[in-house]
Order: sequence, then C-alpha cells, then structure tokens
Amino acid sequence: MQTTLRGTGKPVVIEAGAPLVMIGEKLNPTGRKKMAEALTQHNLDYLLELAAGQVKAGAQVLDVNVGLPGLDAVSWMKELVGRLAETLAAPLCLDSPDPAVLEAGLAVAPGKALINSVSGEEARLERILPLARDHHAAVIGLLMDDGGIPPTPEARLRVAEKILERAARLGIPEEDVVIDGLAMTVAADSQAGKVTLETMRLVRDRLGVNQNLGASNISHGLPDRPVVNAAFLALAMGSGLTCAITDAAKLSPAIRAADLLLGRDENGMGYIRNYRLQQKLLAESAAREAS
Amino acid sequence: MQTTLRGTGKPVVIEAGAPLVMIGEKLNPTGRKKMAEALTQHNLDYLLELAAGQVKAGAQVLDVNVGLPGLDAVSWMKELVGRLAETLAAPLCLDSPDPAVLEAGLAVAPGKALINSVSGEEARLERILPLARDHHAAVIGLLMDDGGIPPTPEARLRVAEKILERAARLGIPEEDVVIDGLAMTVAADSQAGKVTLETMRLVRDRLGVNQNLGASNISHGLPDRPVVNAAFLALAMGSGLTCAITDAAKLSPAIRAADLLLGRDENGMGYIRNYRLQQKLLAESAAREAS
Repeated sequence: MQTTLRGTGKPVVIEAGAPLVMIGEKLNPTGRKKMAEALTQHNLDYLLELAAGQVKAGAQVLDVNVGLPGLDAVSWMKELVGRLAETLAAPLCLDSPDPAVLEAGLAVAPGKALINSVSGEEARLERILPLARDHHAAVIGLLMDDGGIPPTPEARLRVAEKILERAARLGIPEEDVVIDGLAMTVAADSQAGKVTLETMRLVRDRLGVNQNLGASNISHGLPDRPVVNAAFLALAMGSGLTCAITDAAKLSPAIRAADLLLGRDENGMGYIRNYRLQQKLLAESAAREAS
Repeated sequence: MQTTLRGTGKPVVIEAGAPLVMIGEKLNPTGRKKMAEALTQHNLDYLLELAAGQVKAGAQVLDVNVGLPGLDAVSWMKELVGRLAETLAAPLCLDSPDPAVLEAGLAVAPGKALINSVSGEEARLERILPLARDHHAAVIGLLMDDGGIPPTPEARLRVAEKILERAARLGIPEEDVVIDGLAMTVAADSQAGKVTLETMRLVRDRLGVNQNLGASNISHGLPDRPVVNAAFLALAMGSGLTCAITDAAKLSPAIRAADLLLGRDENGMGYIRNYRLQQKLLAESAAREAS
C-alpha cells in the first residue's frame, strides 16, 4: 500500500519494503526553548533555518507544530506553512490538536499534506476526517478512543479498524490513513514496548496500512535514551513501521542500518550515503564551533 | 523451551521471553593480535584476565577459541578450560572446527558446556553430535550443509530440521540444540540480513528452539559497524534470537534496551543495572588511562 505525500517537489511515497520515511520532528516548540523564543519574537528566519536543517539531515517530510500558550496558532500555522512552501520542496505534516489550526495550514499547504492527527475519539473523527477529505490530505490515526489508550494489542487493532471504517465512509481511501500504534513510556510500564510492537504486527498483518510512530516518548526517563530509541525503531521497523516522526540527524544511522538489514536498501547505498551525509554535517558543525 | 548451561556457579538458562544470554566472544585469537601473542607466549594470565573482563562486562557464558596456525590447540584447549574452570563460574562455549579440540575441552569442562558447533554437513553431524551426547553438552547447529549455505529461509529451515532430527536419533533433546541462522555480510549481499531474519522467524514459529547468532559478521566492510550490529541484534531479538556470541562491553546497551522493549525486563532493572555497570567500567578504564 502506498501513501503519497506531495510538497512542491518530488512526491514522497510511504510503503512497506521501501526505506523508512523520516518526518523531521524539530519544528515543534514543545521542550525546545529556542524554537519557542523564535515563535514569540516572530523570528521566521530561525524557523526556516531549522526546517532546512531537518531536510539537509535527511528528513523527507517536515512536521510543523506551532502550539505555544498565548500564541495565535491559526495565524502562525498559516504564515509558517506559506513560507515553508516558498523555500522548501518537502511535503508537510501539519501537527495540532486544534482543527482550526490544521485547517489554516491545509488551506495554504501545497500538494498533499499529512494531518497529525485523528484518533478513535468521536469528536476528533467528526472534526478531523472531513478536513482530510476536503483537502485531499492523508491523516495519521492514533490508536486511542474515548476510553483512553487501550491496554491490549487486540483492542488497539479495533480502534484502527474503526478509524479506517469512518474514513472510508467519507470516501477517504485506506492508503491515506497512516496508523500510529502509540509508543508509551517504557520506564512507566515495562510492557509498553511489547504492546506497541504487537499492535503494529497485527495492524500490518490484518490491515496492511502504513504505520507511523513518534519514536522518542518510549525512552522518557531512562538513561542513554538514543540507544533505546534506536533499538525501538529497529524493532518497530521489523513489525510494520513505514514512517516515523523523528530527529533525522540523531536517528538516521540506526534507521538506515535497519533498512539495509531488512532488505530495503539495494547494495547498501542508502546506508552509505547517509553515513557520508552525517559525517559531513558533523564536520561542518565542528568547523562552525571552531570559528 | 529452556537450554540450561552450567559452569561451577549458577546455571544459565536460555529461553524465549527472558533477557538475551550474552556469550562473550573475545577469547578468540582471530583478528586479535594481543590474544594471539598471549597464546604463542603461553601467557595464561592475560587470557584469564580477558575472560574475567568479559564476565565483568556482562557476559554470562564464555566462548573459548584457541585456534591459531602452528599451535597445539588440543593441549591449549585442555589447559585453558581447566584454568577457566578454577577461576570463573560461568559456563563455557567450546569453539573449534576440530572435534579433537572440542573433545579435549569437554573432557575437563565442569557442568554442562555448549559446543560451537555442528552443522548440517554430514561429516560434522557424524563427529560432533556424539560428543554432545557423550558429554551431555548442548550444541550450536549452524544452518549450512554439504551444499553450502542455503540461499532461502525455507531451505535453511530444512537444515535445522535435519540437525534436530539427527540429534534426536542420538537421544539429544531438542532443548540442547541451539540453532544459528547464520548472519552473513550484508555489504556483500543486501538481502543477507532479511534472509537470516526470516529464517529465524520460521525456526521460532515452526520449531520453537533457542537461537544464537555471531552478530558481528553482518556489518563487515561497512562504516559505523556498531550501529549496524546494534540494529541487527534488536531485529534478531524480535525474530527469535535468545542468545548471541557478542562483545558484551560494546553491545549490551542495545541488547538490554531491546530486552526492555520486548517486555523481557521487569521494571527496566536489567537495562538500568547494565547502564550503571558500563558507566562504572568506562570510568575505571578512564582512570587507568589517566594514571
């Protein structure tokens, strides 16, 4: 199954058997002081630079989140998406809990965007899915509903079925729904990783749709977090993950290694190319520090 | 299914659902100049120190290989195994292509050792399996036969069935056969990882026996090898790996992260304990360098 996203450049296709699509996570002020400052000081240059850096590091899609207390997120989303479309070719992933903010971004986003996100919650199904239909966008479907996050893989699978069925009723094809099995914090519940991985295998084997994860929650509260995130991404890729919202600069080596090990990287060229790219970025960053 | 190995201390149990058992790989002169020198100079102290370091770093079983051109491997195996048994409690994995060397080690190894290895090759089945039976040892079964290494997962599965059947004829129970799906170099064949992982899933789902890998071949010839090895171990653990011949000091963080993510580490204590241990070893090593 292919989910095709479009910006102003080459389309990005998410599919099983192809290398994982990395959705750059950094354009998000949550826990990022400098980005929050740039938003409050209306420093668009900084934001565009941040976005360009994600693409340069290997992100094929850009997550855009402007949620900050006291900020007019509707205007910001509209302005930032407009400027990103002028300067970058990558498709966008519009990230907000507020349908009005998503709609403002969808109105100006070029091509075909990814909405982040709907869930099995009734209010969200009713408000977000029509946005995906009207704007011919793809949408991430989180596996939670009005009862919360189901504790078992089977119950999460039922939420996925519900989201797909509700999307189908509106004429949204299943290839435009990307399921997110939800990576919870493993430090809080040592079965959390296992439940997510089993959910993903069920979704892959029964539904065959594309799957996303925000892959850094999982390691919250643990030491040596990048090691946990890298192991989790590899395990998730072996269980049906086809795209991930992640920091390309930090996690692309593990992701490209897993692509190669899963037979999705002919002659290992993707792995080698990414290695050289990251080495070059490291050298550039060291040179900047030195000067 | 439980494979129980014994040294002079607590038994080590290999089983699905439990943390991966790490078999320390460093007591092997292949590609290790200092170890080779210690063997030629009969420096037993160095070898015992190397072994103790592996256990200290988290290895639960020790691979012992004394194969070096021009060396009397039979006497060496006998002497080294005898001395290891006096100084360390860990079970041993006796590693040699030569049945006479294996037999010399088995004769003096305490408890229940692991033989590394038999394969589906007729000559090896005939010479190695009787050693396992006579010494009540467990044995690693490599998935290759007289036709070489089969290119497909299905054909490798048939080699596993053959090894188990031949073992059963001698009265060796299936829990004493640990199957090794063979990790080949992915730089030479970009489908190599996928074939091994699919083989492991077949072996797990159809046969249910324990599985081992020598996990560092896979990355040969690639840059940033530890990243590839860590991703491969995580993927393999998701596909049925229950023990691995590996460098505990280098790869245990990724292995313990995957244990936690697969729900095999209650409250994450194994991950945290290993993190603290590796930090302590790093600090000790830094202090040694400084003095």
